[in-house]
Parts: sequence; structure tokens; C-alpha cells
Amino acid sequence: MALIVQKYGGTSVGNPERIRNVARRIASFQAQGHQVVVVVSAMSGETNRLIALAKEVQANPDPRELDMVMSTGEQVTIGLLAMALKGAGCEARSYTGGQVKVLTDSTFTKARILSIDEAKMRHDLDAGNVIVVAGFQGVDADGNITTLGRGGSDTSAVALAAALKADECQIYTDVDGVYTTDPRVVPEARKLETITFEEMLEMASLGSKVLQIRSVEFAGKYKVKLRVLSSFEDEGEGTLITVEEERNMEQPIISGIAFNRDEAKLTMLGVPDKPGVAYQILGAIAEANIDVDMIIQNVGHDGTTDVSFTVNRGDFAKATAILEGVKATLGAREITGDNKICKVSAVGVGMRSHPGVASQMFKALADEGINIKMISTSEIKISVVLDEKYLELAVRVLHRTFGLDQQV
Amino acid sequence: MALIVQKYGGTSVGNPERIRNVARRIASFQAQGHQVVVVVSAMSGETNRLIALAKEVQANPDPRELDMVMSTGEQVTIGLLAMALKGAGCEARSYTGGQVKVLTDSTFTKARILSIDEAKMRHDLDAGNVIVVAGFQGVDADGNITTLGRGGSDTSAVALAAALKADECQIYTDVDGVYTTDPRVVPEARKLETITFEEMLEMASLGSKVLQIRSVEFAGKYKVKLRVLSSFEDEGEGTLITVEEERNMEQPIISGIAFNRDEAKLTMLGVPDKPGVAYQILGAIAEANIDVDMIIQNVGHDGTTDVSFTVNRGDFAKATAILEGVKATLGAREITGDNKICKVSAVGVGMRSHPGVASQMFKALADEGINIKMISTSEIKISVVLDEKYLELAVRVLHRTFGLDQQV
Repeated sequence: MALIVQKYGGTSVGNPERIRNVARRIASFQAQGHQVVVVVSAMSGETNRLIALAKEVQANPDPRELDMVMSTGEQVTIGLLAMALKGAGCEARSYTGGQVKVLTDSTFTKARILSIDEAKMRHDLDAGNVIVVAGFQGVDADGNITTLGRGGSDTSAVALAAALKADECQIYTDVDGVYTTDPRVVPEARKLETITFEEMLEMASLGSKVLQIRSVEFAGKYKVKLRVLSSFEDEGEGTLITVEEERNMEQPIISGIAFNRDEAKLTMLGVPDKPGVAYQILGAIAEANIDVDMIIQNVGHDGTTDVSFTVNRGDFAKATAILEGVKATLGAREITGDNKICKVSAVGVGMRSHPGVASQMFKALADEGINIKMISTSEIKISVVLDEKYLELAVRVLHRTFGLDQQV
Repeated sequence: MALIVQKYGGTSVGNPERIRNVARRIASFQAQGHQVVVVVSAMSGETNRLIALAKEVQANPDPRELDMVMSTGEQVTIGLLAMALKGAGCEARSYTGGQVKVLTDSTFTKARILSIDEAKMRHDLDAGNVIVVAGFQGVDADGNITTLGRGGSDTSAVALAAALKADECQIYTDVDGVYTTDPRVVPEARKLETITFEEMLEMASLGSKVLQIRSVEFAGKYKVKLRVLSSFEDEGEGTLITVEEERNMEQPIISGIAFNRDEAKLTMLGVPDKPGVAYQILGAIAEANIDVDMIIQNVGHDGTTDVSFTVNRGDFAKATAILEGVKATLGAREITGDNKICKVSAVGVGMRSHPGVASQMFKALADEGINIKMISTSEIKISVVLDEKYLELAVRVLHRTFGLDQQV
């Protein structure tokens, strides 16, 4: 008998029929002798509906009150799913985040979980109940309802699994696992049986469609066994996200090829090479709430250096305007930019022990005549910035180069 | 400075614009120096939408889970109203029933309030906040969310007013007070400045369109000053529901003419006149969940008696079938029925000290050639059952007879 936490996203519980299907799946799982705690999101579209309603009332709604409103989305789902479970002959009890004391800080609309009181759930589980908990929400120390930010239900599930010391945390979604790359770009893309937490984090562009990154960090920290599965298929083991030591020794060097479309890069040329310069440039960008992806600064010469970074293409114009403002203050020479770029990354913990992965990657791209505009590397990832027209070609070439289209 | 509890129903908060209007009304009230606790219902249509959703998932939803789902309707409104209040420059905090510890029993979907912890509200009020509380809901001793049944928001408001020892509990609705009778039947009907709790209870047919009867009982018991007002008009004092002693000595004898359409009567003739007979007849009816209104049993003769009662017309066929089953057991002679009747009642605490009201009523009806089929009286009400075709005529005649169309 195992204790399993299962999380179903908004699409999986998007209408009454799907809710009944999820209930049947859970009931058959429990019938196999497992204890099940289920975490659910709001029905798809519901959170957006509630936010729109709030903005109609007040253009800039108070965060505490917005959480009061938004948290009802998940509360509806837990009640409906518990009803459906009882209809499927399964004893069940629904709980809001507050009722199982998912204690968070008081940062409304993006609160962090501090602790969970598992005693009540443990008692109900031992009495044979399925527990259905509202994801995305908690309460602060004063009893105010908080929410965890978009995608927070994944984090709720992992936090519950950690608190209950569950054997596994299963994230059911509309894909059946994590792939070596996007199958729409490379039809030969394969589903990975396992991937490490670090790789999941580095594969944000692939992984974020499947799992909220914050929940992966959380799972890594608390050693929660995390599995991604499809809620629309009855077969399949999905992808297990695990720690490196538990992986097969014969793992390939590279686990996947991730990519980002819609990127733009900006470079400030001839910046005086002195302390605080990077902060002055990127601080101004951060203050404007623009997310920066890669940041590159190479060695300087003649007392100046060049600082480059990439942003989402939608922020290109705004970021350029900000740099123009900073340029004079810094005494920089010039600003250049390119909003027709993409980023392609090879990710794999295997590269730690296999030198030469980078040069293998650069050669493969050179062989296809693809020019590399920027390079950035981490322990387990090599990223290149390319002209956007090369995206599909580069992904396919790298996928083949690292043998990802071959069955392990 | 007064402490006022105001309750706004679903129509009054039916869309974002109305919510902002209600917020402005509350803000101007607070600006006059009053402390305000606001109780709100779900936006109109929302509770029905949630119930329909639940029934789509499970035809006969579990009551605990139904309460989990239904209670979100009011939770959305409190968040929206609190946002709007802050937008109107008014410090405000919303609370669910659970957050201010509206403790109820565990009868899901029709729970009864046991107690309210007013400490948190008192603290927030003293700090200058408007408190916005979700009506219709509470929590039981185990922390489960409960609801109070249809119209329970009125009861929530009265209970909060009692717990806070508020100076007045104002129920804002889409009518501007309690009338001497339905103005659609008698255009001369007048709004009452005051009415006693007992009269409100006896005028259920008029009053229930305005106030949930249970909240009136509650207000009477805890001596809460209750006022009905329109949320769509800025002027007007509405109708104050009060105890008899506080009323003007010159009150008219009769306060209003109430009526029920869509009634049906059933009579079991020649029932053996022995103990337990009424129970055998009406117990069977109650078991079938049929609401019985009037019950009449006159003195018997020749060892038998006749038992009559009225039900909602929709239950006539079902009730007749049940009586047929009981007839043989009891050895009764015959069952008769009439599903084309109505009930008209004159209500007024003044009749306690004014004999002759009944005969005045019967004479007025006789003068118009209206035949009375049944009569039933209480301390402050005289009800007659008539052929349904006489309803409007009888109401108009009695309204005039008791001088209700004249300004006091």
C-alpha cells in the first residue's frame, strides 16, 4: 500500500464529465489498496473569469480581496470532485487550503507555503477516505486566504506530498510526460522515462508546459518523487522526475533539447568596465518588471566592456527605451539589439562527466551553416542564441546529434 | 455614532456596477460616522448556477460537498464588494462565515447558527474598517463549511446584529418596505412604517417576498431592530419591524391583508372520532414532504368527525392519493377536495384588544356575496378559504373595510 498525492489541472477537471472521469480513475486507484490525496485546480477558464470580474469591479483590485475571490475557483472543484467520488462509491472529503492549514506568508496573490498540518488528512486517510484538497491556496497566520500565484496547484501538490511523506506525487496533465524536445518540431522526439530535477529546471521551456518550475524546486529540496502523467490516457508511466543518483548509469549524456521562440537580445557596447555597471543596467530593466533570460558579459578591453541580455520579444521596445536612458548615465558607446532571435539549449546532467559536449554541439550547427550569435553555459546546459529562422533546423540537428531519437 | 448591520441581497449586488453602487452607499453611510458591518448574498443567479453544476456532476450531491460548492457564491461577492469599498476610499475587510466563526450545527444545506465570535469584527471596526461578511454560511465545530438554506443571508445579518449588539439591522432589497397588501392587487396599498414581529410572521405571504421568515423569528427572539429598505432608492425609511410595545398607541387594528394563491384543500369525511386520527392523516402527508398550511377539525357527531387541511396546489394530486391509502386504514367515509381555492387573511396585533374584527370581516365578504369555505383564526390573524375567483375582490374589500388605504 502506497500513499500517493495526485494533482489534476484545470483541463482535466474542465467540465462535469471530465470530473466524473477523474473520479473513476481515483476510485480504481484506491481500489488497488492505495491511499490517495488529490489536489485540484480551478476548472479551466474559471480563474480568468474571476480575475476579469474583479477587474470589472475595480481596475486594480486589492490583493487580499483578489485572493478571496480567486480561491473560490478551486473550492468549487474540490466540492464537485468529492461529490463525484462519493457517486463512484468512494468515501471522500474535500478541504480548502485553510482547512488543512496550508500556512503561507502574507504575500497575497503569490504567497509561499511555510508549513502544512497533516494530522487531519492522516486521520481521514486511515479511515478510508480519499482527501481532495484545493490547490493554489493557503491561509496566513491571521487566517486570511492567500493564493500561490499561477500554476501554484503543482506546488500545493508537492508540498502536501512532502508533508505527508507520500511515496509519489503524480501530476496529471494534458501531456503524457516530458519529451526530449517538442514533438511538433521533431516528430522523432521521445518521451523520457526519467529526468533529474536539475534537468527539469534547465529545460524550463519544455518543462514549464508540463510542470510549474517552482514545484520542481520544491520537490528537489524535499526529495519528493514527482511523476508527470496524462489524465486522458489510462496507460503509460509518464516521466519520473528524480535525483541523479537514482538514474540508470547508461543514461544518455544529453536528455533534451529545449528552445525559446520570441526572444530578443540587447547589447550595450563600450560600457566603462567598473564595478556596479551590470547592476545599473539590469536593475533598471528589473524595475520595469521585464524578465531577463540570458545575461552575458565578456572580458573587457581598453577599459570598456559589452553587456548583452535577452528578453521576451514583447519587452524589446520597452527595454531598448530603458537602455537609452541608462546609456548617458553610464557613458556607454552604443546600444544594439535584435528582436529576431531564438534560443536553443542542450540539457543533460551527463555533460558534467563528458567533456566535449559543447564542441560537438557547435560543430553540428556549423555543419549546417548556422551562425551562433551568443553562447551561455551552465553545469548541465549549453545555450546558443541564433537567428530565429534557424530554430527548427537547429533543434532537429541537435536532437539527432545527441542520439535522442534512438530508443535507449 | 451607531453600529449598523446592512444586508444586501443577490439583486442588489447582481453585477459589477451594482456592487460599486452599494459600495458608494456604504461609504457615504460610514462617512456620517457610523460603524458598518455588511452581509451579502451571492450575485443573483450564482447559487442556482452552482447547484446546477453540482447536479450535472452528481444527480444527488452529497450535502457537505454541496455546501463546499455553494458557499463560494457569497465568498466571491464579499471579495468584490471589499475591493469596491477600497476603491471608494473606504477601508474594508471581507470575511467568510468561517473566518468570523459563525458556528452552526452540522446540518449541511440547512444549518442553524449557534454562536458568532464578534471579537475580530469589533477590533476591525474600531480600527475604522467596514466589515464585509459572507451571508448564508458558517462552519460547524469540526471546521466544515455549512450553509443556512435559501434566504439564509437575512438570518446571517440578524445573527451578526445580535452578536454585535448592533443598533439596527437593515435589510436592503428590491422593494422599499412591507405593504398593507400586494400593490398589484390593490393599487391603494400603503407602505407600513412599522410592523410587529408577530405580524410579519403571520403575514408570511406578503412578508416572505421581503424577508426570510426565519430571520424575523431570530430578530424577535434577540430583540434586534430590523428594517427593510430598498437598495435602489436613496430616500425612504423603509419599514421597521419592531416589538409591539414600541408602537404608536393609535395603530390601526389591522396591519395588512395577506393572501395565498395556488392553494388546494382536502377533507376526510366521517373519520372515527378517536385519539391519534389527526396524526395518522397528517403524518402520512408530512412523510411525503408535503407542506400543510391550515388544519381544521370541527366537533364531531355520531362518533365521527371531518378533518380538512390545505396544501400547495402542486401537491394536491399527491396528497389525494395518500389520503386514499389512509382512508381504508382509518375506516373513514369519504375524501373530498377542491384545488381551486385561495386563502385571504387579515393580520393585526390590534385585534387582541378589539373584539368584533372577525364578524366585521365576515360581513364585508357576505355583502359582496363571497361564500366562505373554511375559517381559521390565531391571536392576531383571521384566515378564510374562498373560491379562487374571489381572491382580488376579497383582498380589495377587506383592505378598504379595515381602512388600510387611508393614511394614518
